[in-house]
Amino acid sequence: MNFDHSFGVESWRTPPSSGGRVGQNERLFGLRCIVCGAQYPMQDMPAGCPACAARGTPSSVEAVYSALPHRLAASSSGYRWGEWLPYTHGVSLGEGNTPCLGLPRLAQRLGIRQLSAKHEGLNPTGSHKDRMSAQAVTRALAVDAHKVVLASSGNAAVSAAAYSAAAGLPCEVATYRDMPAPFARALDRLGARRVAFDHGLDRWAHVRRQVEEEGAFALTNFSVPAVGSPVFGVEGYRAVALECVAEGCVPDHVIVPTARGDLLWGMYSALRDLLAAGLIERMPRLWAVEPFARLSQVLAGAPAQADFGGSTAQISIAGSTVTLQQQIAVQRSGGGAVVVGDADAARGVAELGAQGLWVELCAGACVGAAAQLCQHGHIAPQDHVLLLLTAKGDRDA
Amino acid sequence: MNFDHSFGVESWRTPPSSGGRVGQNERLFGLRCIVCGAQYPMQDMPAGCPACAARGTPSSVEAVYSALPHRLAASSSGYRWGEWLPYTHGVSLGEGNTPCLGLPRLAQRLGIRQLSAKHEGLNPTGSHKDRMSAQAVTRALAVDAHKVVLASSGNAAVSAAAYSAAAGLPCEVATYRDMPAPFARALDRLGARRVAFDHGLDRWAHVRRQVEEEGAFALTNFSVPAVGSPVFGVEGYRAVALECVAEGCVPDHVIVPTARGDLLWGMYSALRDLLAAGLIERMPRLWAVEPFARLSQVLAGAPAQADFGGSTAQISIAGSTVTLQQQIAVQRSGGGAVVVGDADAARGVAELGAQGLWVELCAGACVGAAAQLCQHGHIAPQDHVLLLLTAKGDRDA
Ligand SMILES: [Zn+2]
Ligand SMILES: [Zn+2]
Repeated sequence: MNFDHSFGVESWRTPPSSGGRVGQNERLFGLRCIVCGAQYPMQDMPAGCPACAARGTPSSVEAVYSALPHRLAASSSGYRWGEWLPYTHGVSLGEGNTPCLGLPRLAQRLGIRQLSAKHEGLNPTGSHKDRMSAQAVTRALAVDAHKVVLASSGNAAVSAAAYSAAAGLPCEVATYRDMPAPFARALDRLGARRVAFDHGLDRWAHVRRQVEEEGAFALTNFSVPAVGSPVFGVEGYRAVALECVAEGCVPDHVIVPTARGDLLWGMYSALRDLLAAGLIERMPRLWAVEPFARLSQVLAGAPAQADFGGSTAQISIAGSTVTLQQQIAVQRSGGGAVVVGDADAARGVAELGAQGLWVELCAGACVGAAAQLCQHGHIAPQDHVLLLLTAKGDRDA
Repeated sequence: MNFDHSFGVESWRTPPSSGGRVGQNERLFGLRCIVCGAQYPMQDMPAGCPACAARGTPSSVEAVYSALPHRLAASSSGYRWGEWLPYTHGVSLGEGNTPCLGLPRLAQRLGIRQLSAKHEGLNPTGSHKDRMSAQAVTRALAVDAHKVVLASSGNAAVSAAAYSAAAGLPCEVATYRDMPAPFARALDRLGARRVAFDHGLDRWAHVRRQVEEEGAFALTNFSVPAVGSPVFGVEGYRAVALECVAEGCVPDHVIVPTARGDLLWGMYSALRDLLAAGLIERMPRLWAVEPFARLSQVLAGAPAQADFGGSTAQISIAGSTVTLQQQIAVQRSGGGAVVVGDADAARGVAELGAQGLWVELCAGACVGAAAQLCQHGHIAPQDHVLLLLTAKGDRDA
């Protein structure tokens, strides 16, 4: 832990006089592989569980807490849900606390009792990634990292740039050469350094070099096969589920646009813990939305470590990899994967726009996914469905 | 009041089963001119007080409540601060509840004890205008309006489009022909109709015709001289001040980018009421930031009804008019006006960007205004200053 960082921005909820700027959850005592269950002492494991990696099935690790709260009450200082997260205090731009909105007209159109949307576009940089950045950049401060590095050409990059700036840390982003202009502009405004590559794997190699040779702190995965983002960031997504349930929104189904499954895993782990604590009565079914068959193929028997090619305009959930965390999250919750193409996603964006919500393309895909799940009988007319609107729409092409 | 509107989007805090979709504050009983004090029964008065207009000094009206709460507690259903607003329940996209952030590095640079920022860019459409739209579009529903109309080429238009869509009302926006592309695109996505004009006054004339001949509900002012936006919208800004104070953020100075002073008035009226209720100990001084001398000239003796030409890239606070509401808000609070040119505003945007906050150009001007006020001794080293960051930066040229 480190107690003398000078933040540029502070959450009003952590008074400047409170001493410690970075506070680790006292009940966090280690890490555990989500597949084999091997436990590890507190450390950064960007490549995930070494035992699983040695078996050729790389897997991510999750945080282990010695105890969790018995009730759902937001903390009065620091992170609202800090008692459920690795860090209770740290860098914040006011992320979270996003609205859970009812969509009665769309519910009627889909023929279901209740449809809700958690609008993550209302986070500080316009996407759910801010929840990851807050915890992960705080971790970077806690280990005295001198630089933050990640591979992203989208929302994660903008978010990392903002939180790094707030923390006073340099941020380097390995991007595609043809990074969309709105994202590039945001990075420039937030003072991040861009390093452009032609191929996705070159970006990952760059991040790996930065971590292994330069001692940079990685915010994204750089292993092949993929394992998802580093644990301290992924844990930040637990707050999404906690907020919903605290507000009384306990759905039967949650529909989540998914690339490597960080958000999906965070939702799953929090819901699992809420179930264990008796704070919800049953596990909502989690459904991963993908732009072409990846996880769908894995659930049908393909190895998760394979490469699943496909092209899409849904840039936030593009990519050719599947992670074990997304597979486990949908399987253990009784959900699955739904493929929604770009045209259907665009129709969903238009339908949400007609309700006053302008979201990114892959968030629009949630609507098409819900329609498919209704058609195939996975969602019943009496069900309550929650859509995860991952980001606002302004930056889409 | 009207109880059978079908919202496309509902606040989760107003359960669908709660019956009334639009709920007027039971303690709202009329309107009062902010200049001459004349009282009027509940009605829409888009041109403001007729008595003052007859004297050649058009003035806006404010809501009169028979009583206000004696303590600051957010409501558990409907609008969080509905007991302080005209409508307690109505159309919502999850506006408000924006973070109040501490900026210690910038405070140090300015040589003041404490600097905070209320980041209104985290509202559903990215600007403070959402607070106005929520209340004003709810008013439109309450009077059974069939259409919403406004003159705007910026944040107000995007916000109105979103809230109208959520309410199921058509929205028509009188814009400039050269409306910036990001705003035009947002309007298209949200299903608003655009009507383009070359001159500002033609836009106002169009709104007037729509209101007087077509029975449309106006969200913006169309009188010359200007009186600010219609009362039910402006009252929505009261929540900004209530949130700050409820969070413990009670500044000595508030710096507000200002065009016609809707936000400034809403802040002023709420702070005045908090002072009257003993919920704050003294009135914070309100400072209007303008891109060229308008209010500054009025405070130096020019008539508020004059035309003050000037050009600026700070589009959200452009325009050649001054309103009495902005003049009264700064005078009664012991504040004033500060001119910040575009170059200084851009420097402010860069300084805020370096803290992780990307805001619109006029919000950057707040930093330059604070520096000027420090230089001239209006802000003392022991003071606490609050900046109103009116919108996020993505849409700026
Ligand atoms: Zn393992
Ligand atoms: Zn009057």
